[in-house]
Amino acid sequence: MSTSEIDQLIQLLSKLPGLGARSARRATLYLIQHRESLLIPLGGAMAAAAENVMTCDICANLDTVNPCNICANQGRDQKIICVVEDVSDLWALERSGAFSGTYHVLGGTLSALDGVGPEELRIEPLLSRAIDDVVTEVILALNATVDGQTTAHYLSDRLAESNVTVSHLAHGVPVGGELDYLDDGTLTTALRSRRIQIQ
Amino acid sequence: MSTSEIDQLIQLLSKLPGLGARSARRATLYLIQHRESLLIPLGGAMAAAAENVMTCDICANLDTVNPCNICANQGRDQKIICVVEDVSDLWALERSGAFSGTYHVLGGTLSALDGVGPEELRIEPLLSRAIDDVVTEVILALNATVDGQTTAHYLSDRLAESNVTVSHLAHGVPVGGELDYLDDGTLTTALRSRRIQIQ
Repeated sequence: MSTSEIDQLIQLLSKLPGLGARSARRATLYLIQHRESLLIPLGGAMAAAAENVMTCDICANLDTVNPCNICANQGRDQKIICVVEDVSDLWALERSGAFSGTYHVLGGTLSALDGVGPEELRIEPLLSRAIDDVVTEVILALNATVDGQTTAHYLSDRLAESNVTVSHLAHGVPVGGELDYLDDGTLTTALRSRRIQIQ
Repeated sequence: MSTSEIDQLIQLLSKLPGLGARSARRATLYLIQHRESLLIPLGGAMAAAAENVMTCDICANLDTVNPCNICANQGRDQKIICVVEDVSDLWALERSGAFSGTYHVLGGTLSALDGVGPEELRIEPLLSRAIDDVVTEVILALNATVDGQTTAHYLSDRLAESNVTVSHLAHGVPVGGELDYLDDGTLTTALRSRRIQIQ
C-alpha cells in the first residue's frame, strides 16, 4: 500500500497508548503534511529525550539531571516524602502545585494477580530514606484502587519500624463532583470523614 | 513540573490529531519507559520519513520515489484513473485490494465556506492526464459529503471535454450495515439503485 518508511512510522505510532491502526495512519499523514512544523521537531525531540532523560537515583523521577531537579532543590521540604505509584502521578501532583516536599516513585503496586511482589518495587530504597533523621513524614499518595490500597497497607506496616508519621490522601467527594454520579464507597467515606464547620 | 526535553515532547505530541494534553503525557511516559523498543526507533522513523518521503509529480501520492510505485508499476491498469480527495483515501482503496488502476489525489474538495476554488486543487493536472489517449475511464471516488459531491459534479463537467468515461462509486447499504442505523438518504438511494437478482 505505501512505502516501508511510511509503513514503519504507522506501525510504530500504533504502539503508543491511545493510538490504534486508524489513528496512527491519520497521525502519520498529518506528520508528513506538517513536515517542517511537526515531523522534524518531533523526531528531534524524541532523539533528545532518548539521549538525555534519565531516572533519578533517589526518587526515580525522570529528568535530564541526576539527582533530579526536585530532589536537588534545597527550597523544597526535605522532611516530607510523598510516595506515588508512577511518574505520571508525580506530574499530576506537581501540576496541582499543592506539594512542596520530595517524592518517591514506587514503580507500580503490589499485585498478586500480576505477580508483583515487594522486591519488584522500590520499597527498600524508600525504607532507607525514611530512617534518615531528616525525614519526619511519609505521605502514601497511592491510587484508591484495591492494589494501591494493599500496597499502602503494606508500606504502613514496613514504615512502622522507622520514626516517621505515615499519612494518606483524604478520600471524599471530588471538587466539582456531583453526588448523584459518585459510587457508594466514596459517599460512605465522605460522610464518615465529614468535617465540622468552624463558626 | 518536568524538564524541557520532556515538556517539549509532550507539547509536540499533543499537536497530533487525536491526542490531547493528557494522552500526550501518557504517550510521552510510555515512550521514555520503552526507550529501546519504541522511543529510539520512532525518532529514527520520523527522521527517515522527513528525509525520504516525497509527493509523486503525477498523482500526488506520498512515496520515497518519484513517480510513485503505483504510477511506475506497469502491471497496473494505466487506462483507469481513480480520483480521491486525500492520500488517506488512496490508502483505504489500496487496503481493499479491489482497484488495480492508477490514482489522482486532488488535495481536498471545492468549498465555498473555506474559500477553496478549483485552482487550489490538482484539477488541471487531472485534465491533462485525462486527455491522454491511454486513459479511458476516470472514477470519481470522492467522499459522499456535500463538498465531495459538489467537487465530483464540477469534475464531471470539466471532464466532459475529454473522451473519457466518468464513473462514481456506488451508494447503498454498507456491507455489514444495519438498516435501522442508516440515514434516510442512504436508504432511499439503496432502494432506488436496487439490483434485480439473476436467477
